[in-house]
Amino acid sequence: MKVAIIGGGSSYTPELIEGFILRRDSLPVKDLVLVDIEEGQEKLDIIYELSKRMLEKAGSKIKLTKTLDRDQALKGASYVLTQLRVGRIEARAKDESIPLKYHRLGQETTGAGGFAKALRTIPVILSIAKDMERLCPDAWLINFTNPSGMVTEAVLKNSKIRSIGLCNAPIGLQRGLADQLKIDPKDLYVEYVGLNHLSWTKRIFVKGRDVTEELFSKDDFVEYVAGIIGGHKGAKELVAALKTIPSYYCSYFFFEDQAIQKDLDNIKEGKGTRADQVMALEEDLFKLYASPDLDEKPEQLSKRGGALYSEAALSLIESIHNNDGKMHIVNVMNKGAITGLPHDGVIETNCIVNKSGAHPIASGQLPRGSSALTKAVKAYEQLTIEAAIDGCRQTALLALVSNPLIHGADKALDILNDLLKAHKPYLPQFYSKEE
Amino acid sequence: MKVAIIGGGSSYTPELIEGFILRRDSLPVKDLVLVDIEEGQEKLDIIYELSKRMLEKAGSKIKLTKTLDRDQALKGASYVLTQLRVGRIEARAKDESIPLKYHRLGQETTGAGGFAKALRTIPVILSIAKDMERLCPDAWLINFTNPSGMVTEAVLKNSKIRSIGLCNAPIGLQRGLADQLKIDPKDLYVEYVGLNHLSWTKRIFVKGRDVTEELFSKDDFVEYVAGIIGGHKGAKELVAALKTIPSYYCSYFFFEDQAIQKDLDNIKEGKGTRADQVMALEEDLFKLYASPDLDEKPEQLSKRGGALYSEAALSLIESIHNNDGKMHIVNVMNKGAITGLPHDGVIETNCIVNKSGAHPIASGQLPRGSSALTKAVKAYEQLTIEAAIDGCRQTALLALVSNPLIHGADKALDILNDLLKAHKPYLPQFYSKEE
Amino acid sequence: MKVAIIGGGSSYTPELIEGFILRRDSLPVKDLVLVDIEEGQEKLDIIYELSKRMLEKAGSKIKLTKTLDRDQALKGASYVLTQLRVGRIEARAKDESIPLKYHRLGQETTGAGGFAKALRTIPVILSIAKDMERLCPDAWLINFTNPSGMVTEAVLKNSKIRSIGLCNAPIGLQRGLADQLKIDPKDLYVEYVGLNHLSWTKRIFVKGRDVTEELFSKDDFVEYVAGIIGGHKGAKELVAALKTIPSYYCSYFFFEDQAIQKDLDNIKEGKGTRADQVMALEEDLFKLYASPDLDEKPEQLSKRGGALYSEAALSLIESIHNNDGKMHIVNVMNKGAITGLPHDGVIETNCIVNKSGAHPIASGQLPRGSSALTKAVKAYEQLTIEAAIDGCRQTALLALVSNPLIHGADKALDILNDLLKAHKPYLPQFYSKEE
Amino acid sequence: MKVAIIGGGSSYTPELIEGFILRRDSLPVKDLVLVDIEEGQEKLDIIYELSKRMLEKAGSKIKLTKTLDRDQALKGASYVLTQLRVGRIEARAKDESIPLKYHRLGQETTGAGGFAKALRTIPVILSIAKDMERLCPDAWLINFTNPSGMVTEAVLKNSKIRSIGLCNAPIGLQRGLADQLKIDPKDLYVEYVGLNHLSWTKRIFVKGRDVTEELFSKDDFVEYVAGIIGGHKGAKELVAALKTIPSYYCSYFFFEDQAIQKDLDNIKEGKGTRADQVMALEEDLFKLYASPDLDEKPEQLSKRGGALYSEAALSLIESIHNNDGKMHIVNVMNKGAITGLPHDGVIETNCIVNKSGAHPIASGQLPRGSSALTKAVKAYEQLTIEAAIDGCRQTALLALVSNPLIHGADKALDILNDLLKAHKPYLPQFYSKEE
Repeated sequence: MKVAIIGGGSSYTPELIEGFILRRDSLPVKDLVLVDIEEGQEKLDIIYELSKRMLEKAGSKIKLTKTLDRDQALKGASYVLTQLRVGRIEARAKDESIPLKYHRLGQETTGAGGFAKALRTIPVILSIAKDMERLCPDAWLINFTNPSGMVTEAVLKNSKIRSIGLCNAPIGLQRGLADQLKIDPKDLYVEYVGLNHLSWTKRIFVKGRDVTEELFSKDDFVEYVAGIIGGHKGAKELVAALKTIPSYYCSYFFFEDQAIQKDLDNIKEGKGTRADQVMALEEDLFKLYASPDLDEKPEQLSKRGGALYSEAALSLIESIHNNDGKMHIVNVMNKGAITGLPHDGVIETNCIVNKSGAHPIASGQLPRGSSALTKAVKAYEQLTIEAAIDGCRQTALLALVSNPLIHGADKALDILNDLLKAHKPYLPQFYSKEE
Repeated sequence: MKVAIIGGGSSYTPELIEGFILRRDSLPVKDLVLVDIEEGQEKLDIIYELSKRMLEKAGSKIKLTKTLDRDQALKGASYVLTQLRVGRIEARAKDESIPLKYHRLGQETTGAGGFAKALRTIPVILSIAKDMERLCPDAWLINFTNPSGMVTEAVLKNSKIRSIGLCNAPIGLQRGLADQLKIDPKDLYVEYVGLNHLSWTKRIFVKGRDVTEELFSKDDFVEYVAGIIGGHKGAKELVAALKTIPSYYCSYFFFEDQAIQKDLDNIKEGKGTRADQVMALEEDLFKLYASPDLDEKPEQLSKRGGALYSEAALSLIESIHNNDGKMHIVNVMNKGAITGLPHDGVIETNCIVNKSGAHPIASGQLPRGSSALTKAVKAYEQLTIEAAIDGCRQTALLALVSNPLIHGADKALDILNDLLKAHKPYLPQFYSKEE
Repeated sequence: MKVAIIGGGSSYTPELIEGFILRRDSLPVKDLVLVDIEEGQEKLDIIYELSKRMLEKAGSKIKLTKTLDRDQALKGASYVLTQLRVGRIEARAKDESIPLKYHRLGQETTGAGGFAKALRTIPVILSIAKDMERLCPDAWLINFTNPSGMVTEAVLKNSKIRSIGLCNAPIGLQRGLADQLKIDPKDLYVEYVGLNHLSWTKRIFVKGRDVTEELFSKDDFVEYVAGIIGGHKGAKELVAALKTIPSYYCSYFFFEDQAIQKDLDNIKEGKGTRADQVMALEEDLFKLYASPDLDEKPEQLSKRGGALYSEAALSLIESIHNNDGKMHIVNVMNKGAITGLPHDGVIETNCIVNKSGAHPIASGQLPRGSSALTKAVKAYEQLTIEAAIDGCRQTALLALVSNPLIHGADKALDILNDLLKAHKPYLPQFYSKEE
Repeated sequence: MKVAIIGGGSSYTPELIEGFILRRDSLPVKDLVLVDIEEGQEKLDIIYELSKRMLEKAGSKIKLTKTLDRDQALKGASYVLTQLRVGRIEARAKDESIPLKYHRLGQETTGAGGFAKALRTIPVILSIAKDMERLCPDAWLINFTNPSGMVTEAVLKNSKIRSIGLCNAPIGLQRGLADQLKIDPKDLYVEYVGLNHLSWTKRIFVKGRDVTEELFSKDDFVEYVAGIIGGHKGAKELVAALKTIPSYYCSYFFFEDQAIQKDLDNIKEGKGTRADQVMALEEDLFKLYASPDLDEKPEQLSKRGGALYSEAALSLIESIHNNDGKMHIVNVMNKGAITGLPHDGVIETNCIVNKSGAHPIASGQLPRGSSALTKAVKAYEQLTIEAAIDGCRQTALLALVSNPLIHGADKALDILNDLLKAHKPYLPQFYSKEE
C-alpha cells in the first residue's frame, strides 16, 4: 500500500503523519511519498525531515520518501491525497483582498475568493487525475483541496479516476454537537445534507431517537447553534425558525455585512487578510518544524485550522481499505440522494463507505428555509466548474453573478476582471485563446 | 356576461373601460360593476362618473353600476378582476421606505416591499375567492394585484376558483422587442419562462426562425437588452453572456446597489419614494377625472405605468370567453412546464388559453445563468405564501432570509419586525394568536 | 413553397392532393414532388397521373412532378412528408404473422410487428434527415410513418432537422367524441396525453367546462368509450374505473387474447392477416386510380383506414406556414410536459403550433390507472430506437422483453430471431458487423 | 427489551428462536411473546412448547410467554415482528387456484394471488400499527408478511409507527452469489435495486472492484444467473443482455407461460397448488414439533422455504438495537434513492441501518432493460395499496389491470370478482359499504 501526498510540503502534513502512526494496525502503509513543486522544495525538505523524526520516534516501518517528480510519486499508488494550493498562499491573499475593494467578500471557499481558487485549482487537479489514469488507474483520489465540492465534481465528471471529496467540517460539527449534548459521538446520528461549506444538519438522532424538534425548542440549544454561525443579532431567531444546524460557512451568507466589516477592520488594524495571518502562522510553524529536536506534531498546529483533518481523511481511507462499510460525511455525486439538486452534481452528505466507494444516503427534500440558498450556490458551482475548464469569460461572469455573495453584475464584472488579471500565470485556460 | 372590478375606484379603471369599449364586438359585456371599500368611496364616485361619460360617448350598451357591497358585485359574475391595494398607497410608501432604513431595497413587488404586500394581500384575495365559491363558483378570477405570481399561487392552492395571474410586463416586452426588431408583433414568438417579475425570454423566433444566437452576437441588440435592465456598467457583458432577455425587474437583482442609491437620492432630493410620486400623480389624475368635460381616457394616465394593461387583461378574457386558444403569457401552475421549479408552484410562461383555462407550454430547463436566481426567488415566494396564510413569524423570517435582495438574517429580522408593526391593522393573521 | 412527398406512390396520396386543392388559399404550394423508390415506379406513375387529373380538374396552379431521385425532390423543399413503408406491404405481412406463430400479437405498430417496423424504418428516415441537412436544412419533416412516435424520437435525437410526428388517431378521436356529445368540435377541448398509439384523453372540456367526472358517471358514455377499445367483456368496468378515454390502440393491451384470437380466426377463415387484406384493397384501389376517367379521390379510399389523415397533416402544415398558433395533438419531445415520462422522449399531446414548431402543453401526471402501461411502453420504445440505430441484438432483445404484449423472454427471443431473419435485407445494421 | 411475534404459531418460529439463542450476547432479549389468533391456538401451543424446550436446552434466560391477547403482547414491546397470514393457508390455496381458472398466474406475492393477499393483509397490519401507536409507540414494526413491500408502504404512509420491510431473498442472493464466486460474503458488495420480489443486482463488487462487466462476459456466470430465473430457453440470452441479476421472482414475469404450465401440471398430477404442498409440509412439521423429545430446530424446516429468514431478521434488529450502522437490503421509502420510481413509494435496496432506522443509498437509474417492468409493477402496487385501504372495486380493477401478469381487462374483472367473493370474510372494506 503506497500513499502519495500531493502538496506534501504543506504545514498540515504532520497531522497526517501522526494519523498514519496512530493507525499502524488498521492502515498498513508501506510507502509514503511526499511530492511538491519546485517552489515548495524548502518547505518539503523541512516537512520531510520532521516526518522522518516522527516516524522514527514511533518505530514505524513506513518507508518515507520525498520528490519533485509527480509521475514517480503516482506510479503504483493506492491512495493519492491532494492538499495543494495553486499560486500558494500569495494567491489567497489576492483572492481575499480583491473583492473587498468592491465591498464584496473574498472568502477563500464560498465567496469570490473561492471562485478564483476553483479556476486555478480545477485544471491542476484534472491534470493529476489524467496522470493517475496512466500511472495508477485503480488508485483513489482523496481530495481535501478547496473548494472541495467543486474540485471533486470536476474530477468525477472529467476523469475515470475514483474520487471522494473531503472536509473536516462534518466531523467537527458532529464532535462539537456530541460535546454540547454531553453524549458519546457514537450515540449521535445526524442527517447531514447540502454542499461542501453550505451544509445543514437536517435531523439529529440521539441513540436512534429523533430529538430535532425537542432540541430546537430549547433556548440554550438554539443559542449554541446560533454561535456556530457567529452569534450575531438575528442568529437565534434564524436558527429557531430553521430548526436545522447550518454549517459554520453559512454564516457568510446569513451575516455577510458583518463578515465584510470584520475583514475591513482587520486590514485597518494592520492584521491583514486571513491569508496574511496564515502566512505569519505558517512562518512560525515552519521555524518550529525545522527544529531538529521536534519529533511530534506541535500543539501550535491546532491554531492553523484543520482540526480533525487527519482523523477525517484516514478514517475514510480505513473504510475503503478495510471495506468496513462505515458511515462518513463526504462529497460524492448526488444521484438523487437530495431532491431538488442536480443528479449529476456533487453534494456533501452521509455516505456508506467501503472498498467500492462512497454511496450517498437518500434523504429527500432539503430542510425548509435552506433550499433557496443551496440551490443558488449549486447553480453557481456548476457554472464555475465549466468556466474553470473551458476558460470562457462569459461563463465565468454568469457564475459570479449567480453567487449569492456577489449581488451585482457590475461588481461581478469588476471582480472577475481583477481576479483574472491578478492570477494570469495560473489561469492559462483564459488566456491561451487570446494570444 | 357580468364583469366585477374589485378595486373599481383605481386610477387604472379608465384603461379597462376604454378596452371594453374597443372590444364591444368580441366581448359582449352586459353588466359591469365597480366595487370598492368605504375608504375608497370618493374615488369610486369619480371613476364611476368618468366611466359613465366614456361609455355614453361611445354609445355602449354596457350597464355600469357602482357599489360598496362586494357580495352584490360578485353574485352571478362571469369574470372578477382584482386590482386592489390593501392598505392603499400609504402602505406602499411604508413598504418602500422601511427596508431603506437598513440599506435594503423596498421594491413593491420583488423586494421586502413586495414581501409585505404579499402578507397583506393574500388573505384578502383568498376571502374574495371564498366569496366567489359561494356567489359565482364558475367565474374566473383574473388577478392583476401584485405580487401577481404569489397571489395567484395562493388562490390556486387554497380555493376551487379558477384563476389566472396577469401582468403587463410580458406584453410590454414583446411589443418593445418587435419595435426594436422592426417587425410586426405577429411575426414574433418568444419562449418566455420564469416567475412574475423574474422572467427570461429564453428563445426568440422571428417568422418561426430561431434568431436568438444571431441577435445576441450583435452589439446593438445586446445594448438594447442591457437597456431593459437599466444599462448600468456590466449590463452589456451580462446580457452577452446570458443570451436571454431578462425582464425589467431582474435589474433589481443584478443592479441592487444602483437601485438603492436611486431611491436614496430621490428621497434626498425631496422626490420621495415611488409611492410618494404615485400619490402626487394620482391626485392630479383624479382632479382631471373629476372634470365633467372629460369623456375619454386622458393621456396623462400613461405616466402612471401600467401601459398595455387593459390590452393584456381584455385579450385574455377574450380568449377565455371566445374559446379561441390563443397564446398568452400568464401566471399558472407549473405542472412540470419548467424543469427545476416546483410542480405545484406558479410560473409565468407561454400558455394556450381557451374556455377551459390557461395551459402552460413545457420548455424544459431555465436558461443558463438564470437558474440560481429563479430557484432562490421561487423558494422565497413559497415561504412567503405560507407565512401570509399562517401568520407564522418564523416562516416569515425564513422567507425574507431566502430573498436574494435581503442578504442578512439581522436585516431580515429588523425589516420583518418593522413591517409587521407598521402594517399591524392589515396583518391580523400575525396578531390574532397573540392577543 | 415546395413540398416533397416521400412514398409518393402510396395509395394515400390522393387524400393529400385533395387536401392541397381544398386549401389553395391558406397553403400556397408552388411545387409538389412525388418521390418513390424504383420498386414503386408503377404505382408512382398511376398516382402521378391521377393527381394530375385531380389538380387539373380543380384548376390548381400547383406544379406537380414525380421522380425516383430523392436528392432532387428534397432540394429546396419547405416541407417533407414521409409516408413510406420499408419492405413494402410484404414486410408487414411478415410482421403480423411471425409473432402469431408464438401466440403473440403481430400488430403493426404496438406489438412485435411495430417493433420490426421500427427497426426497418428508423435507419431510412434518419438517412432522409441527413439528406435534408444537406439539401433543405430549414425544411420541416412531417412524419406519418409508423410507429410515428419512435420514428420522430429517433429523428429529433439524431439529426438537426425539425420534425413533428403525426397520426390521425387524435383528430379522429376528437371528431368522434364531438359527434357522440352532439357538439361542434370547436366547443370541445380534450387534454390528450401519452404516446402515439397509447394515449389517454385525460380531461374533457365542453365550452370550457370540465365535464369529465359527469360523463363517466353516465352509462351510455361509458358504453361509448368501451366501444372505442372493442366493447369486450370488462371494457365498461375498465372505462368506468379509468375515467379517461383510452385510444383505440390501447385495446391491444387490454384485450390481447381477443386480438390474437381475431387474427387467428381471420387466417383460419382464409381472410389472411390485415396486411393481406390491405394488399387486396390496394390492388383494387390502384385499378380504380389507373382509370383515366377518375379525377377525384374515390370513396373506396375511406375503407383503407387513414380517415382525416390529410386533414391532420395539412392543417398542421397550415399552422406552421401561417404561424397561426393553433392547437394540434402531435408527437414532440416531452421536456417535462408529462410527469413521469422521460424528458428526452417523444410523447403525443396537445401542442401549440406555429412557425417555430410544436410546443407541448404541460399537463402533469398521467391519468390514474394508465401509468403502468404507458411507462412500460415508453421504456420499450427507447430501447427499440437504440437497437434500430446500433443494430445490437441484446438491446433488441431487452426491447422486446420490455414490450407488455410479449410477456416471455423465450417468446421474445424466438420472435426476434425470426424477424431479424425474415427482414435481413432491410436490417443491414444487424448484419454488417457479422459479415 | 421485549419482542412480540405476531403470528407466533407459525412454523417459522423455531428459526427465530434459534436465532435469538445464537445471538444471546448481541441481542439481550428479556421478554419474548408469541401471540396468535384463536383459530391458531393449537399451533401456538405446539410452537410455544417446542420453543420453551429449545430455550431451556440452551440455558437461555429469555422469558417466553404465549397469548391470544394482542394488546398484552404489544404493551411495552421494543420490536414487533409480523409473520401472519390472514385467512391462513386455506386462503392462499384460493389465491393460487382462482387465477389459474383464467390461465393467469396465482403466485402468492407477485401475481393475482399476491394482489388478494395484499387486500386481506394490509388492513390487519394497519390495525396492528394503530394498536402500536397506543401501546408501544416507539417500537419497531419488522414486517416479513408478504407482499412485504406493499404492506410496508401501507404502514409507512398510514401510521406513525417506524417500520422496515424484510425479505430473505436479498440475503439469499448474496450468499448464493458469494458461493458461486467462491468468495467470502464479506468481500462481496452488491448494488441491489428495485422492489420486493422484483429486484435487480445492478452492480457487483468483489473486494471493492466492480466486476459486473467482466462477470457477464463469462458464459458460466451467465448460465448461473439464468438458473436463478429458472434456466428456461431464452434465459441466458436475456441475462447476457441485461447484465444484471434479476431476482428469482422476476422469473414469473420473464417466463410466465412456463410458470402457469408448471402449476397446471402439478394440479393435473395431483400435487395440488403450492399451498396444498405447504399444507402437507406443515402438517408433517407440526407433528414433528409436537414431539416432546425435539428441542432444536429440525432439519425438515429447511424444505419449507424461508432459509436465512431468521438471519435476515435478527441481524437487522441487531443493527437497530446496537446502532451499528451496518448495511442491510430492506424495504424503505424511496425518497429519490432510485430515479424514476415515486419518491413516496417503498423500494427494496441497500440501506444503512442504525437506531434511527434504515436509510436507503441513492443509486440513480434502474438497470437498463429493467425499468419497464419495475415501473409498471410499482404503479400496480400503489393502486393495490389504495384499494386495500379504501375497498374500492374500481381501484382494485385498475390495480389488477396494471399488473403485467394479468394482461387483459376481462381476465382482471373475472379474477377480481372471484377473489373478492372467495375472500369475503377477510375483505370487510369491500363489503361494508354495500350492506
